[in-house]
Amino acid sequence: MGDGGKGDGNLGGGDKAGGQQSLGKGGGKQADGQKGGGDGGKGGSQLGITPRATDYAAWYQDLVLKGELADYSPVRGCMVVRPYGWSLWERIRDIFDRFFKETGHQNAQFPLFIPMSFLAKEASHVEGFAKECAVVTHYRLKAGANGIEPDPESKLDEPLIVRPTSETIIGAMYAKWVQSWRDLPILINQWANVVRWEMRTRLFLRTTEFFWQEGHTAHETEQEAREETLKMIEVYRKVAEEYLAMPVLVGQKSAAERFAGAVETWCIEALMQDGKALQAGTSHFLGQNFAKAFEIEFAGRDGQRQNAWTTSWGVSTRLIGGLVMTHSDDKGLVMPPRLAPIQAVVIPIWRKDEEKAAVASYVDGFVAKLKAAGVRVHVDDREQFKPGYKFNDWELRGVPLRLEVGPRDVAAGKCVLARRDGGEKQIVDVAGLETRLPELLEQIQAALFAKAKAFRDASIHRARTYEELVKTLEEKGGFVLAPWDGDAAVEAKVKEECKATIRCIRAEDAGESAPAIGTGQPTTQWVLFAKAY
Amino acid sequence: MGDGGKGDGNLGGGDKAGGQQSLGKGGGKQADGQKGGGDGGKGGSQLGITPRATDYAAWYQDLVLKGELADYSPVRGCMVVRPYGWSLWERIRDIFDRFFKETGHQNAQFPLFIPMSFLAKEASHVEGFAKECAVVTHYRLKAGANGIEPDPESKLDEPLIVRPTSETIIGAMYAKWVQSWRDLPILINQWANVVRWEMRTRLFLRTTEFFWQEGHTAHETEQEAREETLKMIEVYRKVAEEYLAMPVLVGQKSAAERFAGAVETWCIEALMQDGKALQAGTSHFLGQNFAKAFEIEFAGRDGQRQNAWTTSWGVSTRLIGGLVMTHSDDKGLVMPPRLAPIQAVVIPIWRKDEEKAAVASYVDGFVAKLKAAGVRVHVDDREQFKPGYKFNDWELRGVPLRLEVGPRDVAAGKCVLARRDGGEKQIVDVAGLETRLPELLEQIQAALFAKAKAFRDASIHRARTYEELVKTLEEKGGFVLAPWDGDAAVEAKVKEECKATIRCIRAEDAGESAPAIGTGQPTTQWVLFAKAY
Repeated sequence: MGDGGKGDGNLGGGDKAGGQQSLGKGGGKQADGQKGGGDGGKGGSQLGITPRATDYAAWYQDLVLKGELADYSPVRGCMVVRPYGWSLWERIRDIFDRFFKETGHQNAQFPLFIPMSFLAKEASHVEGFAKECAVVTHYRLKAGANGIEPDPESKLDEPLIVRPTSETIIGAMYAKWVQSWRDLPILINQWANVVRWEMRTRLFLRTTEFFWQEGHTAHETEQEAREETLKMIEVYRKVAEEYLAMPVLVGQKSAAERFAGAVETWCIEALMQDGKALQAGTSHFLGQNFAKAFEIEFAGRDGQRQNAWTTSWGVSTRLIGGLVMTHSDDKGLVMPPRLAPIQAVVIPIWRKDEEKAAVASYVDGFVAKLKAAGVRVHVDDREQFKPGYKFNDWELRGVPLRLEVGPRDVAAGKCVLARRDGGEKQIVDVAGLETRLPELLEQIQAALFAKAKAFRDASIHRARTYEELVKTLEEKGGFVLAPWDGDAAVEAKVKEECKATIRCIRAEDAGESAPAIGTGQPTTQWVLFAKAY
Repeated sequence: MGDGGKGDGNLGGGDKAGGQQSLGKGGGKQADGQKGGGDGGKGGSQLGITPRATDYAAWYQDLVLKGELADYSPVRGCMVVRPYGWSLWERIRDIFDRFFKETGHQNAQFPLFIPMSFLAKEASHVEGFAKECAVVTHYRLKAGANGIEPDPESKLDEPLIVRPTSETIIGAMYAKWVQSWRDLPILINQWANVVRWEMRTRLFLRTTEFFWQEGHTAHETEQEAREETLKMIEVYRKVAEEYLAMPVLVGQKSAAERFAGAVETWCIEALMQDGKALQAGTSHFLGQNFAKAFEIEFAGRDGQRQNAWTTSWGVSTRLIGGLVMTHSDDKGLVMPPRLAPIQAVVIPIWRKDEEKAAVASYVDGFVAKLKAAGVRVHVDDREQFKPGYKFNDWELRGVPLRLEVGPRDVAAGKCVLARRDGGEKQIVDVAGLETRLPELLEQIQAALFAKAKAFRDASIHRARTYEELVKTLEEKGGFVLAPWDGDAAVEAKVKEECKATIRCIRAEDAGESAPAIGTGQPTTQWVLFAKAY
């Protein structure tokens, strides 16, 4: 299925702000020794984060690289997801996985490779993906004149495509497994890597290899397949809003923005802090298109052979990019508590050795209670870094709560509590922290969502004419609701002129009849335009 | 790292016993309608499982296909792991993952593609993998004379290899991340798919694409890296024996069987029911070989620049093949309770509608208690199948315990309890099942291990001469312990003559001095030969 739309791409982070796509030895390395240790207390900018207002793209890249979510690899367009970023993805994965299983789906695994002829079986599908396929043509290397080279004798009769999406190979398997209406529905998901050759990449948002889940279901009736499509876009909305704290608009894509091969594409669209939209997940009603192309046929209750109805739906590591650009600030990442790999970090502070032991034992006591209460807490007892450095470090990584504990706190039964999302530091009782922190984390979760939603809601504008649409997109950004009568030429013109696309069409936006932009024909359909990642 | 060894391969399951590597429409499909529904009670052979004694390879394939662990795909050598097989792999993954994290490792994700030149940087590494590489040479398709084809204008300057293992790409990243001794150790694991082009494949045991974890660590000192290598082979032993109930021998590989690029390769070796060994996991001490090739250098405590010491270690979906061939029988799979996706299946039995409701409510009552006690229990209330069919179906799938509940059981507060691993059916009280079943499951776990260990121990033979070795390998199979002085020519001769290899060299096998096979030189080194998968 389609995860990214066909937006205008971005200047690759690798082309600017010091990122490196290939590894010159020593290039991009820090000076030997402690990572800035000892120069703590100087605020986020000391960590070298470009302010949002100065250069939004550089800010984003700094957060991903310096927050150690991901790094550039020596392979063009492919990223390395570092442990902190991968633990975030594992948490996102586990949350979705739970909802997928609750809605009756099972995980499986299908081959990485797709025979080239399979792509061609569904006409619009191959058209959509042909220009971004990694193609395997040989299966052996040999020593040649200039070192090793693909062995010409190992050339494949039919090239294999590294999967850009798996409707075709999975369709072929479903055709094998489905005989009767009793074999339906098939409700399968896979967590996998996929490859789409991208010319302009940006960490998490658009990479040649990315990581996702793709659900593929086959049903006896059209209605069931349509219900499945909507059920899964609702799962996406729920996880995006309730876990990533990322408000989304739910609607349908226009024909031009649909997944290649779909009858309908539903999407969740988020809004980033720079006023650009991000497609964050899609669910496709595929009708019988793939069932016909791959002969997913069954004997129905009436004994007649017929084609199944299929769906597919996916979210990807792109969500991490959305998460970063929804909540973060000039000090670094801001993690919503429900997702944060570390929800609270404890920083013990001491000068003398006897203080160290007392602080450590005090910390051990309440940390054990926090862990028992299910709080993901980490004690940063690294001795090579000063407290101020550690404060900045964990702010950069977006940990929701920081607890500072010094010798005087031990005596008083207190600690200092700081929220990553702002507000004054507080001195609080350590007694009862195990009930106080889970509540506070939920408050922070709600506050992040409310803040993002207020920003998003304030960024939905209206335009009544083509000129007003263009002006609003240029001057205000955000989503612009405009009357559109379905004319594809007008849609294409907007894209050409201001690089904005129809992000989604929602039933609830229909209303007042107005002359459609571009054509002047009366329409009650109002649709959301935006520039997008 | 090396998961498979360079054994003699196998006739692909796809070449025999009805398996299909490509999907002719309709081929391999079952007759329309219920899957044998209604003809229950006829034993495993009614499900079409070839007896072990008749054809071991066909028996294995029947279990994997009919047990719905995996299926052939239309892509040569690549398998589809079906939901039941994938849930088993997810359980294996989660168990290993817990132990990896307990030993200080973090997960990350590195690119699928490796630049061809990277493989060439470590001389023995490229030699080991060049003959089984899937090579990406183009990044776009276009319409040609005969349909679509790779666009010649999209040819890559440097081909990319689909990772057969990731020491090279990860080495390049570690070189970027490591500056000082303070940056060490790096302890990272990834769960990933890998590709090694295989001419002869067998589901799970040897496939072109397979799924695994690969740990890659970098250390300040040789000793630390050696300790890591042994620590991880011990994790592998522990999970294999305590969770898969699969007894293994732990030892080192000979130079000829080592991973391409390793200084030492440690392995766990299991024994299958046909007397062939299975390499089930390996842990490699890589010395400074990859650190030199990829310039993983750091400033040491003495200020001098030096190379790191690295390790790598992996287990794969091959373990599922080992699991199947360790415990299963002619009725189907046998799942060790600690791994079984379903530990107990409940089959309600009734004739009249009023009985149905009473049985269902009775079942709900004790199933809720079993779930609360952590038992993975499933109620098979499918109405289209008769009880006898269900009994066979769950025996085929290897569920450790079956509970049959009829109207008379409801009245008596009883149920019928059947163990998949043999023994009489028992009538037991339903009261207290939630304490009885967890104990019984642990007993079954222990019994499966004991049985497999007794078989394995009885299959270790001794040979004092070359002739005796060959004769024992041919007539008895299993492991044969023989004196070997390290002569590679003798090792090669054994491989040539009886397709057997040195499976592992264990310190505890050293002992009595004897003339080495082949050379007659006195040696105290006794090593384990076997034919292997």
